[in-house]
Amino acid sequence: MKSQLEADMSGESELALARAESLSRHETLFSERASHIKQSAVRDVFELSLDPTLVSLAGGNPYLQSLPLAKLGEMANRLIVEEGMSALQYGSGQGTEELRAQICEVMAEEGITDAHPDNIVITTGSQSAQDVACKVFCNPGDTVLCEDPTYVGALNTFEAYQAKVEPIATDEHGLIPSALTERIAELRQAGANIKFLYTIPNFNNPSGITLAAERRQEIVDICAAENILVLEDNPYGMLRYSGEPIKPLRAGNPNHVIYMGSFSKILAPGLRIGWALVPEHLFRRFYLAAEAVSLCPATLNQMLISEYLKGHDWRGQIDEYRALYSARCEAMLEALDEHMPEGVQYTRPEGGFFIWVTLPEGIDTYSLLAKGIEAGVVFIPGAAFSPHDAPSHRLRLAFSAVPEEKIREGVRRLAPVLERAIAENDAR
Amino acid sequence: MKSQLEADMSGESELALARAESLSRHETLFSERASHIKQSAVRDVFELSLDPTLVSLAGGNPYLQSLPLAKLGEMANRLIVEEGMSALQYGSGQGTEELRAQICEVMAEEGITDAHPDNIVITTGSQSAQDVACKVFCNPGDTVLCEDPTYVGALNTFEAYQAKVEPIATDEHGLIPSALTERIAELRQAGANIKFLYTIPNFNNPSGITLAAERRQEIVDICAAENILVLEDNPYGMLRYSGEPIKPLRAGNPNHVIYMGSFSKILAPGLRIGWALVPEHLFRRFYLAAEAVSLCPATLNQMLISEYLKGHDWRGQIDEYRALYSARCEAMLEALDEHMPEGVQYTRPEGGFFIWVTLPEGIDTYSLLAKGIEAGVVFIPGAAFSPHDAPSHRLRLAFSAVPEEKIREGVRRLAPVLERAIAENDAR
Repeated sequence: MKSQLEADMSGESELALARAESLSRHETLFSERASHIKQSAVRDVFELSLDPTLVSLAGGNPYLQSLPLAKLGEMANRLIVEEGMSALQYGSGQGTEELRAQICEVMAEEGITDAHPDNIVITTGSQSAQDVACKVFCNPGDTVLCEDPTYVGALNTFEAYQAKVEPIATDEHGLIPSALTERIAELRQAGANIKFLYTIPNFNNPSGITLAAERRQEIVDICAAENILVLEDNPYGMLRYSGEPIKPLRAGNPNHVIYMGSFSKILAPGLRIGWALVPEHLFRRFYLAAEAVSLCPATLNQMLISEYLKGHDWRGQIDEYRALYSARCEAMLEALDEHMPEGVQYTRPEGGFFIWVTLPEGIDTYSLLAKGIEAGVVFIPGAAFSPHDAPSHRLRLAFSAVPEEKIREGVRRLAPVLERAIAENDAR
Repeated sequence: MKSQLEADMSGESELALARAESLSRHETLFSERASHIKQSAVRDVFELSLDPTLVSLAGGNPYLQSLPLAKLGEMANRLIVEEGMSALQYGSGQGTEELRAQICEVMAEEGITDAHPDNIVITTGSQSAQDVACKVFCNPGDTVLCEDPTYVGALNTFEAYQAKVEPIATDEHGLIPSALTERIAELRQAGANIKFLYTIPNFNNPSGITLAAERRQEIVDICAAENILVLEDNPYGMLRYSGEPIKPLRAGNPNHVIYMGSFSKILAPGLRIGWALVPEHLFRRFYLAAEAVSLCPATLNQMLISEYLKGHDWRGQIDEYRALYSARCEAMLEALDEHMPEGVQYTRPEGGFFIWVTLPEGIDTYSLLAKGIEAGVVFIPGAAFSPHDAPSHRLRLAFSAVPEEKIREGVRRLAPVLERAIAENDAR
């Protein structure tokens, strides 16, 4: 059957023209924010990552092979057969009471011991909690602070709300408090309406860097004094494989920090279940906005996670993940140590999924992506992790989803690409 | 352990005061739209509906008892055990290719035969598709047209984007084309920026009314001529139990209608899977906005629905639903015929979940809710289904989730409440 458009094009041309005009008029219907919504760079290379001839060090997918699949399958089966009337039905917009209580236990493992289930809203992944936070706090033109670099998905969400995103300088210990203070002063001077600081304090995506313990309270205090909320995103916190655990910023600060957690990295991202722990005095509006987006989180998925947390040694499972990711991180660092040419620096993360590679200034890693692919390796250029996609001489490598031998092979393939780029840069 | 706030209150009072002030300053951080986001009236009575001494004719939950639970449980089990590496992993932001192809088959049953999987984006329920549509098209102050009455969840979403929602008059055949034309002219005159018409053409929620076949093309044409998109929400379309099926507005109009479908009513709402079929020239921005909200729809849930559509007689299952809801609708209509006092009118739907009851003017059904609850029956006052919660002399009864005997009992309990209200209204 011919499509309407084909019929239009082949048929009477005047009518076709009129229709084409009528369609182009639709352009005027888009909202202002629509033009701010862009394709994630991670998604750009998603398709590429499926090519088996390439080694993809691009995507931060968790490695799920070690999950107790037989047990999870049985649990899902039982839930549907015996509790299908709840598991398949609409549920509370806030999420099930049982899972919210269990989430309090999960957060207690990280050092948040005063959370109440009433102040938790379960969301469609923590991405959706970021979306809700923007919806509730950001007018177009408002300012959001973030680490430089920061998570590309959060940048996309903030930009979709027409927030101005201001990156704050970081060093090997994370966000620099004095840089935060200075930038806030400058922005205030320029009339900025600053709503919140978005931070990934543990094993930052993309940098792998962890915010030092001694800086955490200082940063909350700076924000509190300036009436700026802290939006703490902690998907990787439990995936620490060396060094001492550090309490979240939320731990001692129930009133100034919105804390976001996720089951994507400690269980399974395909369930799309995350959460936000929201200060009591901000909770109602946050919750109502979450409900307006999707009515309620998927009931079956919440109940399956509850079963898993009750019926499986989930702490042991996280230990397994830790051992696995630690070995992969180690393999990548060893390969980098062995193969990287002079002039290349990289972070040595204590947890999480990512290593952040810095080349000499003047090199735009975006232009290296095609060359990497030619050489059989995919990475994410650093530009993706800053607002406005400014050219960057950095790039992100993910080791989470790739077996060690392949990690080594990927780094081997990457090395000559970087070497050539450095030589060319030196020659300029 | 004492909470921070308790500690503050009991401790040094100056410090406590300073902290309280600092918290109240947070009020200034909310976005303008945050104050437009309100609790759904349906959610208000959600808790009440759980009280077993009450008959709840409030919630439009589907009746899931007739689902093939053993089969669904087995499917979920197999998916997790054998395909867990995909089912539990991140997936495409657009949704799986397999389910998008199957959705084309589902839509073909309704009369949309030219849909292409590439133009579908799978969403977290169709509620989330409404949210994305607003995000992509509505600036604050833009106008959205809807039927009077219309779905409360959509109203909440539109108002969350600070859209002005303009209800258009309906009669027993649905939206009135001449009223639409007139209202558009008036609104344009007043400078309105109209973005789309939101319509539930089949068995409208809350009215149960179906838009007549002969009006459908006319309405699309009116909108197309005025450069207004049509947002067609069709969750109940397949649940017709009398009369002839009518093709969706999208059927002959691929370029002017965004069509939203859902598995919530034909399978299970707890999976939170819906979709939008978007005109090709509008697709990319719609899709990117959906991705910015939640990265991707839940993979396990999509794959489970795919298995169900492949491995079960889903058309037969819908036939069962039809027979069941038809009997319940019939029971409610019979009870209304028997018990309703003079002066009460109600719709006679040919499908869906709802009957819309009209009392004499001057009665505010919101004030009857407490009396209904006293008498042991819950309903939704009509005010919920219009923008601004204007007082309404109408109310919604849902028959979908309640067995026939209980429906009759509920209507019996409701009758004297309405009778008294009418007598009091007459006496004024």
